[in-house]
Amino acid sequence: MASGVFDLLHLGHVRFLEEAKRAGGENAKLIVIIARDSTVEKTKGRKPVMPENQRRKLVESLKLVDEAVLGVETFDVGEVIRTVKPDVLVLGYDQTGMERRVRTFVEKNGLAVEVVRVGKFEADELDSSSKIRQRIVEKYA
Amino acid sequence: MASGVFDLLHLGHVRFLEEAKRAGGENAKLIVIIARDSTVEKTKGRKPVMPENQRRKLVESLKLVDEAVLGVETFDVGEVIRTVKPDVLVLGYDQTGMERRVRTFVEKNGLAVEVVRVGKFEADELDSSSKIRQRIVEKYA
Repeated sequence: MASGVFDLLHLGHVRFLEEAKRAGGENAKLIVIIARDSTVEKTKGRKPVMPENQRRKLVESLKLVDEAVLGVETFDVGEVIRTVKPDVLVLGYDQTGMERRVRTFVEKNGLAVEVVRVGKFEADELDSSSKIRQRIVEKYA
Repeated sequence: MASGVFDLLHLGHVRFLEEAKRAGGENAKLIVIIARDSTVEKTKGRKPVMPENQRRKLVESLKLVDEAVLGVETFDVGEVIRTVKPDVLVLGYDQTGMERRVRTFVEKNGLAVEVVRVGKFEADELDSSSKIRQRIVEKYA
């Protein structure tokens, strides 16, 4: 299982999902939790550019992804873990707050969930949604 | 075969590729030609936001797509058709200039290439790269 906003889909997302699939081992099924618009608005101060249903469908269109599901409205790591029951839960390089919450929940509840953190990729590409937005604002505003 | 710029990948692209795959019939192999940065700059006056290699890799990451290849630098419909040898060539709703050139080339050379034009999808979503750019400029500039 991996999770994220996946606003303005880019290669950084694809690489993250590649790592996530790999972390699951052979024949792993990759389930991706897509952050709700409301959750993103609460944590980042504004909604994503692409609405949640489109972000979900686009992620599910990727070869790597077996299933993409929308997160819960009142975001709760524990509820997601209890529902999806992942064997391996993969976190991106920038999901530090999430890692803390996940590890706490898994330990407290004595769950057999392997928590894996993947690294950052080369920074020379447009590998983040905020860099893409910035480039667009520079070119088109 | 389908072609396009595929800058800022969105659901409109995915639906277009779905239609393209469907137009090819059962077990069709979908080859997507990705417009070069230089071609886009020449025809639209500026380069895409995402560089060609990233646009290519991202399109090839889609379940629907068997192969995504970069177009030729000095854009020539005929050269692409001769190289890919498609059974069915699918054009999007906004590729009218291209359709004319393709039909002329296919007729002149007596080729057995079926040319299919697909329609536009509902307009209530962020289904075009320019709408996405506009939304970003409005929100972030």
